Amino acid sequence: MSAGNDHSPLSFTDLSRLVLPQSIVLVGASEKPDSIGGRTLENLTKYSEFTGALHLVNPGRTEIHGRPCVASVLDLKEAPDLAILAVRADTVLDTLRDCGKIGVKFAIVFTSGFGETGEAGRAVEARMREIAHSTGMRIYGPNCPGLNNMNARLGLTFSPAWRIDRRPGPIGVATQGGGLGRSFIQSMDRGVGIGLWCSGGNEVDLEVSDFIHYMADAPDIKVIVTTLEGVRNGPRFMAAALHAARRGKPIVAIKVGKSEYGARAAQSHTAAIAGSAEINTAVFRELGIIEVDDIDELIDVASLLSRATPTGREQLAVYSFSGGTAALASDMVGTAGLKLAEFAPETIAALKKALPGYAAVDNPVDVTAEVLVNSEVSYATLKATASDPNTDLVMVPIPVEYGQTTVLLGESLVKVQGEVTTPIVPVWMSDRTGEGHRTMIDGGLMPMRAIGNTVLAVKRFIEYGRWRAEFDQAWLPLGAVGEAKTTANLSEARTKALLEAAGIPVPEGVVARSADEAAQAFRDVANGKAVMKIVSPAITHKTDIGGVCLGIASESNAKAAFEAIHANGCKACAPGEIEGVLVEPMLPSPFVEAVVGIHRDPVFGHICTFGLGGVSIELFKDVSRRLLPLTPKSARQMIAETRCYELLNGHRGQPACDIDALVDALVKLSDFVVRHASQVDELEINPLAVRPQGQGVTALDAVLSYQGMEPSQW
Amino acid sequence: MSAGNDHSPLSFTDLSRLVLPQSIVLVGASEKPDSIGGRTLENLTKYSEFTGALHLVNPGRTEIHGRPCVASVLDLKEAPDLAILAVRADTVLDTLRDCGKIGVKFAIVFTSGFGETGEAGRAVEARMREIAHSTGMRIYGPNCPGLNNMNARLGLTFSPAWRIDRRPGPIGVATQGGGLGRSFIQSMDRGVGIGLWCSGGNEVDLEVSDFIHYMADAPDIKVIVTTLEGVRNGPRFMAAALHAARRGKPIVAIKVGKSEYGARAAQSHTAAIAGSAEINTAVFRELGIIEVDDIDELIDVASLLSRATPTGREQLAVYSFSGGTAALASDMVGTAGLKLAEFAPETIAALKKALPGYAAVDNPVDVTAEVLVNSEVSYATLKATASDPNTDLVMVPIPVEYGQTTVLLGESLVKVQGEVTTPIVPVWMSDRTGEGHRTMIDGGLMPMRAIGNTVLAVKRFIEYGRWRAEFDQAWLPLGAVGEAKTTANLSEARTKALLEAAGIPVPEGVVARSADEAAQAFRDVANGKAVMKIVSPAITHKTDIGGVCLGIASESNAKAAFEAIHANGCKACAPGEIEGVLVEPMLPSPFVEAVVGIHRDPVFGHICTFGLGGVSIELFKDVSRRLLPLTPKSARQMIAETRCYELLNGHRGQPACDIDALVDALVKLSDFVVRHASQVDELEINPLAVRPQGQGVTALDAVLSYQGMEPSQW
Repeated sequence: MSAGNDHSPLSFTDLSRLVLPQSIVLVGASEKPDSIGGRTLENLTKYSEFTGALHLVNPGRTEIHGRPCVASVLDLKEAPDLAILAVRADTVLDTLRDCGKIGVKFAIVFTSGFGETGEAGRAVEARMREIAHSTGMRIYGPNCPGLNNMNARLGLTFSPAWRIDRRPGPIGVATQGGGLGRSFIQSMDRGVGIGLWCSGGNEVDLEVSDFIHYMADAPDIKVIVTTLEGVRNGPRFMAAALHAARRGKPIVAIKVGKSEYGARAAQSHTAAIAGSAEINTAVFRELGIIEVDDIDELIDVASLLSRATPTGREQLAVYSFSGGTAALASDMVGTAGLKLAEFAPETIAALKKALPGYAAVDNPVDVTAEVLVNSEVSYATLKATASDPNTDLVMVPIPVEYGQTTVLLGESLVKVQGEVTTPIVPVWMSDRTGEGHRTMIDGGLMPMRAIGNTVLAVKRFIEYGRWRAEFDQAWLPLGAVGEAKTTANLSEARTKALLEAAGIPVPEGVVARSADEAAQAFRDVANGKAVMKIVSPAITHKTDIGGVCLGIASESNAKAAFEAIHANGCKACAPGEIEGVLVEPMLPSPFVEAVVGIHRDPVFGHICTFGLGGVSIELFKDVSRRLLPLTPKSARQMIAETRCYELLNGHRGQPACDIDALVDALVKLSDFVVRHASQVDELEINPLAVRPQGQGVTALDAVLSYQGMEPSQW
Repeated sequence: MSAGNDHSPLSFTDLSRLVLPQSIVLVGASEKPDSIGGRTLENLTKYSEFTGALHLVNPGRTEIHGRPCVASVLDLKEAPDLAILAVRADTVLDTLRDCGKIGVKFAIVFTSGFGETGEAGRAVEARMREIAHSTGMRIYGPNCPGLNNMNARLGLTFSPAWRIDRRPGPIGVATQGGGLGRSFIQSMDRGVGIGLWCSGGNEVDLEVSDFIHYMADAPDIKVIVTTLEGVRNGPRFMAAALHAARRGKPIVAIKVGKSEYGARAAQSHTAAIAGSAEINTAVFRELGIIEVDDIDELIDVASLLSRATPTGREQLAVYSFSGGTAALASDMVGTAGLKLAEFAPETIAALKKALPGYAAVDNPVDVTAEVLVNSEVSYATLKATASDPNTDLVMVPIPVEYGQTTVLLGESLVKVQGEVTTPIVPVWMSDRTGEGHRTMIDGGLMPMRAIGNTVLAVKRFIEYGRWRAEFDQAWLPLGAVGEAKTTANLSEARTKALLEAAGIPVPEGVVARSADEAAQAFRDVANGKAVMKIVSPAITHKTDIGGVCLGIASESNAKAAFEAIHANGCKACAPGEIEGVLVEPMLPSPFVEAVVGIHRDPVFGHICTFGLGGVSIELFKDVSRRLLPLTPKSARQMIAETRCYELLNGHRGQPACDIDALVDALVKLSDFVVRHASQVDELEINPLAVRPQGQGVTALDAVLSYQGMEPSQW
């Protein structure tokens, strides 16, 4: 079978014959104009440009609207590429079986009443999945609005809106849930061109990841848009996203479930697990997926990316006919950390020539409203602005519908955009629209709705450009997903031994089993002062139970400390669980305390979290995250993107820290976890002392949680 | 003279006869339909409902459109309340003089070509101001679009848009600059009702503060909206804002100039000094002014406040016909820190009764699209939701234009809103509009444009309610504005002496002038360990020049430290500038280091800044600010609103700090500066040690910058 049959986790079926089939069978075809089957038939025949074979199935009809109709899929002479099921819920399974039997490649199931209604429905869905697995036929749905291929003008949908959704273009949309997807589709009325919309409903088989992967290869799609309530299969999602990244196609995404309310609502809506919002955001960011918060933001960013490809170094020009508006827009550009271009002398000369003395010819340009009644002036000044060699994007905030003035401005905008490649982005700020607004939409300029929206979209556009410039094509996430089913924790001393073997510096320590051994250890390892700590896998908060002594300065101190720590330990756990008392030299100041943790995320696999200890993490949540494996480059990036990076760089007269050694330790830690991915659930070094340049790092405390075999047998 | 003549800084002229004059003279009246004078005449006669006397002045006409016309203002038999000047720039001054001479109360000057064109224009404006001062006639403009009184249907404007700006209502708008003002006005097309728009152009006399003050008293205005590029007179602005606050009228504001770009652009546009954005934001917040960033946000917040008055305890319901949309909206409600209402049992019962089993009847409500084709169901479910006793606001996100479905929903929304007081806020998310959208607008529901916008508006609405509940009607800001013209800094020792006299604890210290005196001081004050510091008003960074020794443990230590510190001091300044070396006992741990600074802001007067030392301030800018005078309540609030507050409250096993003593110290510091407001430019305590509960606070270091007399003579 050419399509389908490949359900291995990281491979993807070619969906070309789903998106653009050569032959279709509509099961449940009807002549009733208001029925699902009737509307679908109308969409296929009247409002699509489908030239392939269309078969109709309806047990009660021999022809519909003059087209032949058979009673069953089994009556077809050849297997169509695609079956569309517009049938009652209780006949879906049989119909799917018939389709699979004759070799149909894809089936779209509109019918609802399955997983979304409860346990019984989910059982039926499991049987659909079995049919897909056993026959190789891929299933789209059930409970879905169909698939809209605007670029081929093929509506595999029952929606009456299909006939008016007529603005093809380079954006592909893959959604979970139809409402938000259709909300995006209606941005066509803002001039946004959309080529394909896939919304696989309950996703019993094909899911968002499959469509992202397809769109990454589709030559007519340049930008991919998705809305997600939960990522069902992290590794497949990451694989699809990386495929798009390698093909140079940006993905813009909304992921519901950042708050408890959202996670709960998403779960009750699609039964998808929302996952941790912080992890999700970090993973999206690492994969170059542009995460946004709302549908209008999705539209803004996608429309911008459909017009231009960012480099990450963009500088803006602001052009307006209102001084206050120009000032507000410039202000928001600055607040967002974006850059206004410094105009070249020839730009300023051209603006001066065209404008009266009281207009502002510097960036921001305020041509004043009086001037815009002359379309030659608006053309000349816009052309000069958009042709400025230092300007990469022109923002044109328009505060008001202003009759003929805004019509002429719209015409100039469209004309100039036809002559320059620098994107010109009008911002129609007013609730009053009119002919000027329409002119910009018809001219393909996709006006945005507010300055703030525009600045945010441009910021994300530029950030994506920066990510793209840095993207490592060869990198693959580890993807060792699954629940953390921790068998046991490893004691500090044994964890440190593993770290040392992995190449990460730890203090030279000895586990003493008696007071005398502690005294001996003090002689052997302490260089003046020692620290002593209880060693037991059963005790995680050593300080809380009196299991830590600092500043041990003599052998007798060491003996006394052993007795005290051991006694406290015996109160906290069974004596048999105590491995002894660790004696280590105290690390001399100065050093900065970092925290490095790796944990197994059930959706995406192992994630490394980095931050500096103390209030930065606790109060300000100043951490960065990366999927494993880390590379020297990504490790350095994750250190640099915390706000506390400044402290490592030598803050206020302190010596600069050994960042090279920190990078090295992070990579070695990552390598260690990669080697033992199936066992390691969590590994934390807290603190990891980062010493002055040239003096390296030292893991002062560490704990490992693992599943399966004892680490000694790894 | 009844109106005008009062130019003292904190009093305000009654503007009733400007906003609704009983008689008007239009100078420069014209029959040419496209001239300023012609359009104004048309607006006054054809598109206004003005019943007072209207006089026309034009030296070349004896009548216009059948109305008598005189050659000069001086030919009028009585002084009209208002003169409108639609005359050439070179005749404005003479006309204003004539108006003042006959006793006109107010003059609106449309004419441009003054301050905005440069130095010469600013000189003419100074003469306008002289006329206002000498005659008592108040001037509005020049270079302004006029004044629109929608509630009285009186257009004192030449704008051709006046005839279509026809949605009166409870919002009053006072703007600097016309473009952003008109952008707001056009929100009428979203259903927002606006009663009055004042935009005083170059503001030679009347300015935004005057209109805010007027609107605070105006019975037809409930919400005040303003856009500002700079606050010209801080005390008048604060007085107007407090007047509005006492009258219970919220002010929603945009202030341009948060970034360097914006400050620069605003300055070149209106020549207003933008001021510090952080200070501005803090002052607005303290005065209850709701600061927003963009025009759409201004519209969202103002429209919400025009519909309801918040208590600060609002809980939301989310009602949608799309599960994904309901989930996204709930998510954003949660992310913003807002609360979803827990429905009462009767609400859930009513929803269950009306809806099929697969609909979600919990909050968020997802009625599903199928259901909404039945308007009885949409009415019943909306009514149940909006009547829920725990719900204070219903958000209805509508992802798509959906033909008859959204029309029926719109009708149900309007009907239910007519029956309940709980505000129902539709969110029309789609770029496609239609009859449903129109139904909501016509029904007064002012649909918002995105979920994010709505959540942000509701958050600000609730926060304002919280501020309002806490507002201290009696409080008045000190308002000792002016440039900081520092004469000198005071040394640490002398600053501490002032603090001690003001009731703020300082360490018991002695200024030693020799090594022997240092040894004696060690005996007298050090309780085991001492700290020694150079004392000189010329040295601000003592540590940097080797002017500080910690942990002095003996008299001989103290002697040696004196010699070293003194020698280092002599390298950093003239020996005559050294007052000696301060010897103080070292404060025993534990304590938390706070930073308290008061500085004179040129616009608003003295401001107190509070934060905790270290990375919280330096990297995370975690500070709070208040105008002086502080009260015990406001001091406690400013401490509590820092994120570091948690540390003072006893973080991770540390003892809770003496917050009562900290509050007391802040208030005493404020009282001290209030007593010496004309002298104190800046006073900083850094660090202020906050010790465990019951042990008080201690100012460990402090410096004062003053102007005028020596503090010893205060």
